Amino acid sequence: MSSTFGKVLTITTFGESHGPAVGVILDGCPPGIPLDAESIQRDLDRRRPGQSAVTTQRKEPDKVEVLSGVFEGVTTGATIALVVRSVDARPQDYANLKDLFRPGHADYTYWKKYGVRDYRGSGRSSGRETVGRVAAGAVARRILEKEGAGVQAYTVQVGDLVAKERDLEFAEQNAVRAPDRKAAVEMEQAILKAREAGDSLGGVIEILASGIPAGLGDPVMDKLDASLAWGLMSIGAVKGFEVGEGFAAARAAQGDQPPQRVAGLR
Amino acid sequence: MSSTFGKVLTITTFGESHGPAVGVILDGCPPGIPLDAESIQRDLDRRRPGQSAVTTQRKEPDKVEVLSGVFEGVTTGATIALVVRSVDARPQDYANLKDLFRPGHADYTYWKKYGVRDYRGSGRSSGRETVGRVAAGAVARRILEKEGAGVQAYTVQVGDLVAKERDLEFAEQNAVRAPDRKAAVEMEQAILKAREAGDSLGGVIEILASGIPAGLGDPVMDKLDASLAWGLMSIGAVKGFEVGEGFAAARAAQGDQPPQRVAGLR
Amino acid sequence: MSSTFGKVLTITTFGESHGPAVGVILDGCPPGIPLDAESIQRDLDRRRPGQSAVTTQRKEPDKVEVLSGVFEGVTTGATIALVVRSVDARPQDYANLKDLFRPGHADYTYWKKYGVRDYRGSGRSSGRETVGRVAAGAVARRILEKEGAGVQAYTVQVGDLVAKERDLEFAEQNAVRAPDRKAAVEMEQAILKAREAGDSLGGVIEILASGIPAGLGDPVMDKLDASLAWGLMSIGAVKGFEVGEGFAAARAAQGDQPPQRVAGLR
Amino acid sequence: MSSTFGKVLTITTFGESHGPAVGVILDGCPPGIPLDAESIQRDLDRRRPGQSAVTTQRKEPDKVEVLSGVFEGVTTGATIALVVRSVDARPQDYANLKDLFRPGHADYTYWKKYGVRDYRGSGRSSGRETVGRVAAGAVARRILEKEGAGVQAYTVQVGDLVAKERDLEFAEQNAVRAPDRKAAVEMEQAILKAREAGDSLGGVIEILASGIPAGLGDPVMDKLDASLAWGLMSIGAVKGFEVGEGFAAARAAQGDQPPQRVAGLR
Repeated sequence: MSSTFGKVLTITTFGESHGPAVGVILDGCPPGIPLDAESIQRDLDRRRPGQSAVTTQRKEPDKVEVLSGVFEGVTTGATIALVVRSVDARPQDYANLKDLFRPGHADYTYWKKYGVRDYRGSGRSSGRETVGRVAAGAVARRILEKEGAGVQAYTVQVGDLVAKERDLEFAEQNAVRAPDRKAAVEMEQAILKAREAGDSLGGVIEILASGIPAGLGDPVMDKLDASLAWGLMSIGAVKGFEVGEGFAAARAAQGDQPPQRVAGLR
Repeated sequence: MSSTFGKVLTITTFGESHGPAVGVILDGCPPGIPLDAESIQRDLDRRRPGQSAVTTQRKEPDKVEVLSGVFEGVTTGATIALVVRSVDARPQDYANLKDLFRPGHADYTYWKKYGVRDYRGSGRSSGRETVGRVAAGAVARRILEKEGAGVQAYTVQVGDLVAKERDLEFAEQNAVRAPDRKAAVEMEQAILKAREAGDSLGGVIEILASGIPAGLGDPVMDKLDASLAWGLMSIGAVKGFEVGEGFAAARAAQGDQPPQRVAGLR
Repeated sequence: MSSTFGKVLTITTFGESHGPAVGVILDGCPPGIPLDAESIQRDLDRRRPGQSAVTTQRKEPDKVEVLSGVFEGVTTGATIALVVRSVDARPQDYANLKDLFRPGHADYTYWKKYGVRDYRGSGRSSGRETVGRVAAGAVARRILEKEGAGVQAYTVQVGDLVAKERDLEFAEQNAVRAPDRKAAVEMEQAILKAREAGDSLGGVIEILASGIPAGLGDPVMDKLDASLAWGLMSIGAVKGFEVGEGFAAARAAQGDQPPQRVAGLR
Repeated sequence: MSSTFGKVLTITTFGESHGPAVGVILDGCPPGIPLDAESIQRDLDRRRPGQSAVTTQRKEPDKVEVLSGVFEGVTTGATIALVVRSVDARPQDYANLKDLFRPGHADYTYWKKYGVRDYRGSGRSSGRETVGRVAAGAVARRILEKEGAGVQAYTVQVGDLVAKERDLEFAEQNAVRAPDRKAAVEMEQAILKAREAGDSLGGVIEILASGIPAGLGDPVMDKLDASLAWGLMSIGAVKGFEVGEGFAAARAAQGDQPPQRVAGLR
């Protein structure tokens, strides 16, 4: 198992759903970046389930603690360790899964690969692993901000509902994080309706990066496109990745007008 | 610049368009795999431009030479080096590009990043870098075959034309490698028509892997999905990647019937 | 900064002297290895300062906690996280070092490299970083034991005093871990005498590995010799490494009889 | 097998003794470094066997060819590939080794590990693998020179004969590369005498680096000491490594005067 991602800034996550803690180690963060638990907490709070009616109902306060790499309010250039204790870990809730393999949770694959069953909420393959990624992302965001760059992600599709507007301020003000007032309401209703039916809905996220200097990333094997794809596709639920025009480029003759979103990463 | 990809089988490519040679180094190939230049050559010949009217017209015989890692017809477990000399390298053909930056060829990005212009056919960012990948892929195919696994790729879309059949045998018998007799003819005509207009067309490739054992790949950061995305998105022209249902999964409620191609990698 | 070592079993340490915690993340540990906090604790207790008159006097209970990778008493194949909270962290004790650079503690090098001063007991370059290594080593020891292999280290030189015997059982029963009853007493006295004079003494450690199968390690760049040298020389205080005959091989003609310790790793 | 070393400048060697070619791929070389085959050739010529009576008698012209990464006399920042064709490869000379395992050549270890015998002069474990390292080192030397840094290595011991002087200019003017006129003559005679007896002699090399800026290297796992140890110990014949005082530091109380060579890397 490899839990390490990245080459310049390297992150290593740890922890299972319903284990005692999850977290992340970062190497390669420059010194002198202002960083405290509060600023990381803000991003963790955005991730946290149980915030609204439309997300997983499990309560996780997810308080982050900085164990190393920060001294007197700034990063020192040393290894950063961030840990979040699990306060809602109830392995007994999963006892009924001991002999059941849930589809889409990697239960069967883990068992075939390792011959060991950690039936507590999918263990390491749980979405809870992303707590470490989000905490690391909060640090990365501080580094980008210092360089004048920024990244914003928002929901552009839920089921068949597609956001048409790109009101990025509004995207932060609704439960589904959609940048479209009308679509946001419809998406929320569709999610609640699917849940009533014992189901859930997929979606599409758009990520907009701004202030990125020309030449960022490395050519050949570590192209920025490839690194982004690697990182995003390593999240269990992600099944597709496009950059720029993406699959639409197949249809377009080169002479076509590029769409407005060509500058962004989708 | 990193030219290395992979963790168990590691490949490192080298060489520029219109430089003296391109090639690849492989580490991690098991010993005892039957391998000779001829079997690698077959895959290189499939890649070779100038085979038909629909591809790039440059002539490249692309004869591969095995410099290490093979003894008495089998791999030894040692580092494999494969090199292809350029016989059609004509840097002077590109002299008119010395002061021109071509769109979509990374010319500007390289110049911003390195401050040096290698104007000979885009240098390292040229599609010719994939000669090393194809040669490495031929070795990987031998390893997979020994394990009873196989991989086949074919063209399912060119411009707006979509293949509806999946006649995988026929896919190897037409110039556009489409698995659909009707679509193959239309695709070829569309490409020629675009070329007449001084343009080109995009497309979509589908990759079908068979005989893959459960548990292949590593959880968390090096998921098989993520590694495939990393590798494929590091090819310059690739702008999107889907696995299984891909983006279509966003639309489908979980209770929907999976389509037939769900077992494949798309 | 890279805090990661190893390729098959990968360890990533974190934490500073006098920060809130130190620890380690391990990836690549096979599933099914019996592991609990107690067995790791035994190795940490061997490392712990303040055990006897001859070591650093700082008290560190160093209680290890297993945060992930172990379920129902065995490893699951998943990422293992081990953390040790600092209970004796007294940054204020180091306030007098705020404007002083101590020799041999990397204080000046860190300041030149990062432009930031973490004056709390040398921060990341402190010997306390090895808590993570020892905890990881305890896990590695469990893996080796399962394969019938073992590793023992002991002190063969302190200052000018050289151990002549190799009583490996006795080595675990004296404060300086020397495998020689007479030398052990002399070494202890020499250390106490140096301390009275406000000084300390260097030494030489011998490591004996047994049950190692032929072909372990990788040829060329990751030779076992090279990997061991990398790991051991990355401990701040280590300034030399020999394997087998080591430097003595320079003197010996090849026809000479090998010494008894040739089978060990020194 | 891993043939890759280094993190900022990464080298990957390939090729076997008596295979068609040996060489190296470099990634991470900055753009704008003046580089041509001639300057690399100078370092390869220093390595070349058969130069004098005291070295291996095999003749290897070892002409290097630059296959990529250099355009108009300077590095472009792209992957550098260097290859040396074998003109003296005579696998048939080794036919008598087909059923013999030579001591000290890794013959037995390879056979146990890979189950395949490449009996042609030890294949990949041959000293000929270092052709790639020397070629890479020649490129690294150009980079260091641009930064005002330099590295020189010389022989300070052969058998029991120890060089007392450090005449670094003279070191380049004698067959054993000793920096001591008297020792150089004695060393040469000792080597010839050992050869007459069908034997050979070990030795000690001292490496002096100058102009190295404070803070070079990375703390914790990739300390400069550790990286140098990794690289040097991965050369088959190297059995020991010291930096600064090395093993002598064990004997010295900290109050002792440092020897003159403390600034160098030994």
